[in-house]
Amino acid sequence: MRIAFLGLGIMGKPMAQNLVKAGHEVRVWNRSSGKIVGGAHGAATPADAAKDAEVVWLCVSDTKAVEEVLFGNHGAAQSLRKDAIVVDSSTILPSASVKFAERVRAKGADFVDAPVTGSKTGAESGQLIFIVGAKQETFDRLQPLFAAMGKSAVRVGENGKGLAAKLSMNLMIALTFEGFAEALVLAKKQGVDLEPLMSLISQSMVRSGVVDYKAPFVLSRDFTANFPMRLMHKDIHLMLEAARQNGVKLPGLETVDRVYETSRHEGNSELDYAATLTTLEKASGVSER
Amino acid sequence: MRIAFLGLGIMGKPMAQNLVKAGHEVRVWNRSSGKIVGGAHGAATPADAAKDAEVVWLCVSDTKAVEEVLFGNHGAAQSLRKDAIVVDSSTILPSASVKFAERVRAKGADFVDAPVTGSKTGAESGQLIFIVGAKQETFDRLQPLFAAMGKSAVRVGENGKGLAAKLSMNLMIALTFEGFAEALVLAKKQGVDLEPLMSLISQSMVRSGVVDYKAPFVLSRDFTANFPMRLMHKDIHLMLEAARQNGVKLPGLETVDRVYETSRHEGNSELDYAATLTTLEKASGVSER
Repeated sequence: MRIAFLGLGIMGKPMAQNLVKAGHEVRVWNRSSGKIVGGAHGAATPADAAKDAEVVWLCVSDTKAVEEVLFGNHGAAQSLRKDAIVVDSSTILPSASVKFAERVRAKGADFVDAPVTGSKTGAESGQLIFIVGAKQETFDRLQPLFAAMGKSAVRVGENGKGLAAKLSMNLMIALTFEGFAEALVLAKKQGVDLEPLMSLISQSMVRSGVVDYKAPFVLSRDFTANFPMRLMHKDIHLMLEAARQNGVKLPGLETVDRVYETSRHEGNSELDYAATLTTLEKASGVSER
Repeated sequence: MRIAFLGLGIMGKPMAQNLVKAGHEVRVWNRSSGKIVGGAHGAATPADAAKDAEVVWLCVSDTKAVEEVLFGNHGAAQSLRKDAIVVDSSTILPSASVKFAERVRAKGADFVDAPVTGSKTGAESGQLIFIVGAKQETFDRLQPLFAAMGKSAVRVGENGKGLAAKLSMNLMIALTFEGFAEALVLAKKQGVDLEPLMSLISQSMVRSGVVDYKAPFVLSRDFTANFPMRLMHKDIHLMLEAARQNGVKLPGLETVDRVYETSRHEGNSELDYAATLTTLEKASGVSER
């Protein structure tokens, strides 16, 4: 297929590369120049990239960037084919995405929200999971592209539902990690040996993907960003805003937001979100090891 | 070995039964009479049961019950052999357990805290996990008994550490479930299809033992008690008291405690702790299905 890929960040670049590898004709564009995807053509503007494209795929940082890339000067909407599909893998507010979908539909094209779970490594190895809000028919047409970049794509409803589901899943990550961090602080302050405790956790129903993944880093005090606290905090704000718009109360998440706020003030924004543990430790007078 | 087993509740009775099956000589006692364990002798009092026993195993409901069974009139301490080991599988406050350990040691015997994870089914099938605070030597001597009742026993430190670790693990369960419940409310209120969402959860790092176990019940709205909210709430109070005693701040758990408090007022105490979901749903105006 002829694909425009807009946004070559940590996730977008390997995603575009995997589309090229799968044999698609890809034109790429990035806000800052100098990003190259082997085998893909470069484009000067989103409109330039989107010209003649069957699918226009976005992976940018926030709502404002999506709006700019789609509807700004030289935005993709200016050259969009009537039968094109715009797919947005950015993590933004569901209600904003629904409005973008309406504006794209008004031009005759279709729109899909398809945020992903999976790290940079998952993007590189084509192991992403796409969480999709789309018409069933459009979802079906995109299967070869999902398959080129991910191990799985699941449709959870119409426009905006992919993002709603993605935010709900990240909410689970945030609270599961908070539980792990509070448990560690409570155990450490009482003198529990952490190594056997981790063994217990891994063999009991307390186990989780989040803890499996984070525990080795946490125990070796390696808080290098894999998923930076800044980005998780951004997602938490999206969850709280989506909750507000829908009259939903999220008491646990509100508390976690306050922990992140404190951690931000402590200068941890560029570390992994796991560094919120150090904020809880400080509040409880736990020494670092 | 000659074992006194004190407390034949939901967990204690199958545990005692498994000791009998493994060929041990077991004398049992329960506060209310009429409980029978096939192949075990009944005893009129804890002191009667503990007479000549090499190991005195307790599994009762709370701190007061442990004190009464050990040190009350006709308590086990009255007939304790000097070389006996007292093992307590009750979930009580670590600091209280440490004091009981000191009083038992003063009589020449040894003391072990060995709370368990695992349900009634796990107790029946001998699949419990013991979380142990004990001297290494005493822990080693108890191996045949742990093996008779459980699939695993892990020593996490000296007296009181088993309980500290158990409470920390239950804290993780409480917060992991809270995350799942808040995510469900946020997703439902936004119209996400729950079936594909559950599929996404199970194939991503958001998966957890807690969600694997609880999701089928939650989605079929079956809140029959497996782990009653009342008991989880009791454990949460123990965690918060242990935290207070040790100067630990647990903001997430404090929030979850308030959710449980509201849920208790709504009459859910005898339901499974998963019924806290209905409390979050009510607060957010989510209809039941």
